[in-house]
Amino acid sequence: MVTTEKITCLLNWKATPYHLPLFLASQLGYFTDEGIKVAILEPNDPSDVTEIIGSGKADLGLKAMIHTIAGKARGYDIKSIGTLLDEPFTGVIHLKHKSGITDFHSLRGKRIGYVGEFGKIQLDELTQHFGMTPSDYHAIRVGMNVTDAIIRGDIDAGIGIENVQQVELEEWSVQQGRSRDDVQMLRIDELAELGCCCFCSILYIGNENFIKNNPEKVEKYLRAIKRATDYMIAHPADAYNTFVKSKTHLDTDIQRKIFQRSFRYFSRDLKNVERDWNKVTAYCKRLDIVGSDFEQNQTNEYLTWPLLPESEPGVEPATVETGVVKGGCTRCLHSSIAPPELAAL
Amino acid sequence: MVTTEKITCLLNWKATPYHLPLFLASQLGYFTDEGIKVAILEPNDPSDVTEIIGSGKADLGLKAMIHTIAGKARGYDIKSIGTLLDEPFTGVIHLKHKSGITDFHSLRGKRIGYVGEFGKIQLDELTQHFGMTPSDYHAIRVGMNVTDAIIRGDIDAGIGIENVQQVELEEWSVQQGRSRDDVQMLRIDELAELGCCCFCSILYIGNENFIKNNPEKVEKYLRAIKRATDYMIAHPADAYNTFVKSKTHLDTDIQRKIFQRSFRYFSRDLKNVERDWNKVTAYCKRLDIVGSDFEQNQTNEYLTWPLLPESEPGVEPATVETGVVKGGCTRCLHSSIAPPELAAL
Repeated sequence: MVTTEKITCLLNWKATPYHLPLFLASQLGYFTDEGIKVAILEPNDPSDVTEIIGSGKADLGLKAMIHTIAGKARGYDIKSIGTLLDEPFTGVIHLKHKSGITDFHSLRGKRIGYVGEFGKIQLDELTQHFGMTPSDYHAIRVGMNVTDAIIRGDIDAGIGIENVQQVELEEWSVQQGRSRDDVQMLRIDELAELGCCCFCSILYIGNENFIKNNPEKVEKYLRAIKRATDYMIAHPADAYNTFVKSKTHLDTDIQRKIFQRSFRYFSRDLKNVERDWNKVTAYCKRLDIVGSDFEQNQTNEYLTWPLLPESEPGVEPATVETGVVKGGCTRCLHSSIAPPELAAL
Repeated sequence: MVTTEKITCLLNWKATPYHLPLFLASQLGYFTDEGIKVAILEPNDPSDVTEIIGSGKADLGLKAMIHTIAGKARGYDIKSIGTLLDEPFTGVIHLKHKSGITDFHSLRGKRIGYVGEFGKIQLDELTQHFGMTPSDYHAIRVGMNVTDAIIRGDIDAGIGIENVQQVELEEWSVQQGRSRDDVQMLRIDELAELGCCCFCSILYIGNENFIKNNPEKVEKYLRAIKRATDYMIAHPADAYNTFVKSKTHLDTDIQRKIFQRSFRYFSRDLKNVERDWNKVTAYCKRLDIVGSDFEQNQTNEYLTWPLLPESEPGVEPATVETGVVKGGCTRCLHSSIAPPELAAL
């Protein structure tokens, strides 16, 4: 059988503005400059990703930290080799004027949408944490379409992130003549008492055998992505306009807002952050997703540039209001970095 | 390493309405009913597909006939196991009012967009066929974005199919206050004198080793898709509405028109058509893509239902005017089957 030099890279989600560094590395020829070929693939079901990469049917990809840990605990040989997004806020998103949701206790009897099976595990653990049982609410698996399910009224609330589903719902609310503030999020990191400041980073992951057998390719891959990240941070508007030449259906105001809102979450140095890994690993142990002897499946050894220091732990949790981060941990929120003006995008 | 039972299926193109049978088989639980799991993946670059499937990095997928033949000739172990679309018209699409293109000779000096490398080979052969050399026109690789490149004016014309790019351009023309008839196609089957009636079917393909080692899975996969095809033919509006619940960005009028225009091209029995294979194989020999001893890499042995007869060869070529097929070969155009009314979709 003829083999291929192409590295397959399976996204965690349909193409989305926060994937810019990967697409730009491809579009701007940075992978080619490094002498590698990368085929970016999009999943139809996000729940397929760890299994496909872990079983060696794809080489590299993306996945949220909790799924990266959970996949490894299930025997899928995946490992994180870097970070794309540092801890976007994750939570239960709802429309205040109709959901009847005010705090976690008020989720009783509600229809809560989740993406894949771990969303259900998290919800069940949270209900337990707040003295409820899974029978106290209706969990509905909605896959990638949390926003639409809320808009259609199929669910009263759904699990999403601050820089995607919350933006989509906010813009829809404005179209409906309501305020952006009608969209509320119960942050899981706060509900679960995880401590400063957020929940679950999105990571560059890969199949462990592929990584072990191709260390130079992995270094080149990440170097090209770092170069694309630097370009995007320096030239956000140019970067976005390049991206949508390839993904024309994302050439919309809402998607530009999603990019804008994602901007401060992009990891600048792509490192796995020890503090975040410790926090989420501890959470996974609490959820009984991993055993007490779980060894973190992450490494920074393929990042061939100086890494930024982590900030000190123990600072106050951050809060967020319509995309403006207040207080909290500067490292993971990059809150000193202003997002690009929307008009300039 | 933990293995997976999931079959990966790599599309030929970003998710598009003509992919409905595959997505429906997944959404309606038909794969599950057959006892198989299928992970549908979308490529970022259509030129990756034969290489990734042929090298065993994906199990199954979709690809146009000419690429399926060309990939095999290059040593990629791919084989067609059925047909999704019977011979949609493929050609050089342009805007009459500004392109200055009237016939193939008038392509001299023009900027012609193509998707991947075989588009270039075809163009070069066609120019040669009409007494030109590749230096007589400017070939520009535009990937999936032929329509946008024409709209932006980056190219004067581009290779596309009648049921996708032509529809997109027609609808854009109407938005601009021009007629749908401003969009013209020089059909490659006519230019290349391939004979009745069209050019290049889109096929269900797979990695040969995977197929050989998993005959039952392949049968189940195709049976689920046949069931979804039957459902879609019988209930086009329900089918489309189900599809866009998963692919919300395709819930637009233009995409519904693309579905409508694709309707008559869907293979009803999913068979590889011998006549079409002979025609395109002969064309590939002419293009020097394959040797004279090329053995067709296609089989109908995994289609476990009665196949429809092929129509007689030798009838007059069909013509098409804004989606209405006139005359020609009834088999490959299914011209006796009315597409669903747009208002009903």
